[in-house]
Amino acid sequence: MPYRSPVSEYKFVLEHVVGFSDVSSTDTYAEATPDTVDAILTEVAKLADEVMAPLNRNGDLDPARLENGVVRTSKGFADGYKAMTEGGWLGLAATPEYGGMGLPQTLSCAVNDFFAASCMSLGLNPLLTQGHIEALEHHAPDWMKDLYLPKLISGEWSGTMNLTEPQAGSDVGALTSKAEPQGDGTYAISGQKIYISWGDHDFGGNICHLVLARLPDAAPGTKGISLFMVPKYIPNEDGSLGEANSLRVVSLEHKLGIHGSPTCVMEYDRATGWLVGEENKGMAAMFTMMNNARLGVGIQGIGIAEGAMQHAIAYAMDRKQGRTPLDGTPEGTGTILDHADVRRMVATMKADTFAARAIALACGVGIDMTAATGDKAWTARAAFLTPIAKAFGTEVGMRVSELGVQIHGGMGFIEETGAAQYSRDVRVTAIYEGTNGIQAMDMVARKMMDGGETANAIIDEIEATAEEARAKLPDLGEAVWQSAETLREATEWMTAQGELNERFAGAVPYLMGFARVLGAHYHLKAALAEGDNGPRTRLARFYITRLLPEHIGHLAHATCGAEDLYALTTDELTA
Amino acid sequence: MPYRSPVSEYKFVLEHVVGFSDVSSTDTYAEATPDTVDAILTEVAKLADEVMAPLNRNGDLDPARLENGVVRTSKGFADGYKAMTEGGWLGLAATPEYGGMGLPQTLSCAVNDFFAASCMSLGLNPLLTQGHIEALEHHAPDWMKDLYLPKLISGEWSGTMNLTEPQAGSDVGALTSKAEPQGDGTYAISGQKIYISWGDHDFGGNICHLVLARLPDAAPGTKGISLFMVPKYIPNEDGSLGEANSLRVVSLEHKLGIHGSPTCVMEYDRATGWLVGEENKGMAAMFTMMNNARLGVGIQGIGIAEGAMQHAIAYAMDRKQGRTPLDGTPEGTGTILDHADVRRMVATMKADTFAARAIALACGVGIDMTAATGDKAWTARAAFLTPIAKAFGTEVGMRVSELGVQIHGGMGFIEETGAAQYSRDVRVTAIYEGTNGIQAMDMVARKMMDGGETANAIIDEIEATAEEARAKLPDLGEAVWQSAETLREATEWMTAQGELNERFAGAVPYLMGFARVLGAHYHLKAALAEGDNGPRTRLARFYITRLLPEHIGHLAHATCGAEDLYALTTDELTA
Repeated sequence: MPYRSPVSEYKFVLEHVVGFSDVSSTDTYAEATPDTVDAILTEVAKLADEVMAPLNRNGDLDPARLENGVVRTSKGFADGYKAMTEGGWLGLAATPEYGGMGLPQTLSCAVNDFFAASCMSLGLNPLLTQGHIEALEHHAPDWMKDLYLPKLISGEWSGTMNLTEPQAGSDVGALTSKAEPQGDGTYAISGQKIYISWGDHDFGGNICHLVLARLPDAAPGTKGISLFMVPKYIPNEDGSLGEANSLRVVSLEHKLGIHGSPTCVMEYDRATGWLVGEENKGMAAMFTMMNNARLGVGIQGIGIAEGAMQHAIAYAMDRKQGRTPLDGTPEGTGTILDHADVRRMVATMKADTFAARAIALACGVGIDMTAATGDKAWTARAAFLTPIAKAFGTEVGMRVSELGVQIHGGMGFIEETGAAQYSRDVRVTAIYEGTNGIQAMDMVARKMMDGGETANAIIDEIEATAEEARAKLPDLGEAVWQSAETLREATEWMTAQGELNERFAGAVPYLMGFARVLGAHYHLKAALAEGDNGPRTRLARFYITRLLPEHIGHLAHATCGAEDLYALTTDELTA
Repeated sequence: MPYRSPVSEYKFVLEHVVGFSDVSSTDTYAEATPDTVDAILTEVAKLADEVMAPLNRNGDLDPARLENGVVRTSKGFADGYKAMTEGGWLGLAATPEYGGMGLPQTLSCAVNDFFAASCMSLGLNPLLTQGHIEALEHHAPDWMKDLYLPKLISGEWSGTMNLTEPQAGSDVGALTSKAEPQGDGTYAISGQKIYISWGDHDFGGNICHLVLARLPDAAPGTKGISLFMVPKYIPNEDGSLGEANSLRVVSLEHKLGIHGSPTCVMEYDRATGWLVGEENKGMAAMFTMMNNARLGVGIQGIGIAEGAMQHAIAYAMDRKQGRTPLDGTPEGTGTILDHADVRRMVATMKADTFAARAIALACGVGIDMTAATGDKAWTARAAFLTPIAKAFGTEVGMRVSELGVQIHGGMGFIEETGAAQYSRDVRVTAIYEGTNGIQAMDMVARKMMDGGETANAIIDEIEATAEEARAKLPDLGEAVWQSAETLREATEWMTAQGELNERFAGAVPYLMGFARVLGAHYHLKAALAEGDNGPRTRLARFYITRLLPEHIGHLAHATCGAEDLYALTTDELTA
């Protein structure tokens, strides 16, 4: 049973759970009608299911490799990439001015979900280009937009982001790459960058690197960082490729997963670059790209969860072991799916994937409403939901793919089944684009600088849904309401901490607790949207009675403060 | 900073936490004095640290391979194995009658812990031989003991267990391998077995397979299974190796982890075997071996947790990123260890590894006290703790190694650092020797057939410790007492369910909740053993305030019953 993109699930969540009609009611996104959404999801699904999914295993077994300084990609990847670009999917959310479809980001989420599920290592390539496009749309000078955007949007060229250096990972401000003005509007870029996903490939066209570097005499830290466009080939004015730039791939990393995605060490040796945005404002420009990418990475986690779930269910429906309680009943399948513990695992996968996806799509709706309305409340909501979508989506990706391995039993540990690949591939999503710890710190610091206003607005919304549920599903409504109250108390505790480190000490469990409760909210919305006590209600009941109670542990952990962490001395911790 | 076996940690836990003095006070184990324990731990640590740890990476990179039907092991493994046998460690707990040291199983736990931490793939070999030895000690006829045990105990020969067949995994009763009596006391064994760890190697000597098979006309299911000794070479009466038996390695599995451990598909084609134990009582004999192995596998998880923790701490102590709250203070290291979120992760690793190890060693003490006293309460206690030690130990191994990767940030995803290897290697421990789901089902069914007597005796013990703590550490005592009460309620719910499937529906979360509370108990004991509010108390406080609250979510999940799992129809689950 091969992977099938969850088209009808998307349609349900968009329509009934995350309020996508708000987006399609705006002038900006008036074209995103239900018919258009349906047509797009169906087409992307076809590409993912039929073209990309068959490449996934091969990308793992036949990794990208460096040959004479050039990256050779896994067999079939070039054709897969071509199929992606032919559909125009890279430019789905890009501006029509440069050839994009101008559709909502929320629909890009579907694209990235289906691509990650079917072949994450290849799907990572357009995800980066999408962020690249957005950074240019917001910060590039017009000439650069005119020259680069049509090619990036069509996929003829691809884009990367170059932040990390060996000594500058989570601490981006420690980077030392240099940019020297050449007096002709260009800069000479020098330095080494690591972890550059898709830093090179053999798909043809140009590879456009957005590189963070320092001007001479720039301030230390993040305030002295500027962003530059550094293409592999210097483009001519007509967009044809000119001479090779002074940059190279030094080596490829040997990684736990996504073997098909070349992770490059890049060296820039007085390479020609052009400024993107203002001098010393590179971090702001980069954050445009990163926020997009953070949601995209959360979606990768969700896509992998979907892929791993389908894969495990197919195995469970085929594997027979022992007697089950359903043997001899009309419902019985005679397979391990009928064992209570396997059902528990499958239902957990399903319920958590739904919760994470709803959160991510709600974030997407927030981004689209921000773009369409400029409303500050939407901006704040999208910004608040981004770290949750990223960290919870990737956490769910890890947990669900781990359950997928477990359902396979011994076969899960054997690479040939492919179950282990999901758990290897997804592991990086909790790390890149800011580790989940960084996401959580962003959430409790920057995203709560409003004194908790945005957090509490979301909690209000959860409680309103819980109240609404009291008539039809009183037990579920009550449980969700109670959990929202606990979340509100934890939120009050967080915002009361003047010392950020007190918040950081519980940031990750706070984020996870918030996500648990928010996930219950969306399950409840799904149940309420259903006419009677149907499948959505049963899954909501499963989540709310079995998984939601985890928020108690998370939020108790979240509000302990930093004192006990530092009472443990370094000697004790490292003894 | 290379791996260092935690000798002083072992001494503390044995002396102050799990009551090892009960064991050394018995006649049977009178030799296990503190001095002897110290000497053994020190010697094993030396072997693990100096000989085995340097082999670990190579075992991953240079997997065992099959060449012309013979397994060639990773470079250095044969020397490592020789060093293990020279220390006599395989026979540490084996009977002195055949050359063993006759020391407690609890000390074997230390051996397996240090071996797993330093090189799990090689350390798995003696773990299997130990189970093999124990099965023979209990069930083999005297001639077989005389012939095999001295060689197995010295490590000259090694042992395997052959249960699984393609259609018979968790459902062992479905196996179809055949055993035909030959009229001369031997049996012709035929069939294919899979997942046979260390089914072959090039360390020399004999490889002794304990094989489950069916006699002609045997009853279906587990009641028709018998156990046979099927050696690779038929031994002569003097113990020298005779002709090759009719068995072969068909292939090796390509696995997610423990690449250095050859996982064989074995084929027996009328191979000569001898009955071990009684006809059709093979499962009982196999369970002797499996119970030993289950504790051993839990210990593997704990060893990996220890290794991953030390590895991550060394990285954290070396990696500098950003400003920390300790900068400029005498305590400050200037490294990421001083960030609150990294401290949270390191403290979690430390606290959970302690908890899992204490539970496993308490299980070991139960096994030793059973052997020394024959007391039924000890027997029941050991049997009850075995699935917890296995499932929680391996769960902690997975969680801690995952945190280890996370602490490494981007480097965690790069295979060269070795962080990812821990998480790949440990993954199998939640699967083999009975998946963690099987462990949990064993716990709530077989191990609670006493109506919860053993469970409640342990809960009584937890509450007694909590009461004892009320004077010195009142907040911790109260928290542990409350958690024990919640556990008691969940236990009452479990035992009240006549339908086993109602229990199975919450078995895994029940086991995890039980372990969380039991871990708090041992942390509290450690804190009480400490003279003042020292490191043990601080770590206990961390565990009890931050991790213990997870039991609420687990136990709420545990007591939901099966109805909601089956209300979700197959169509809904697989849609």
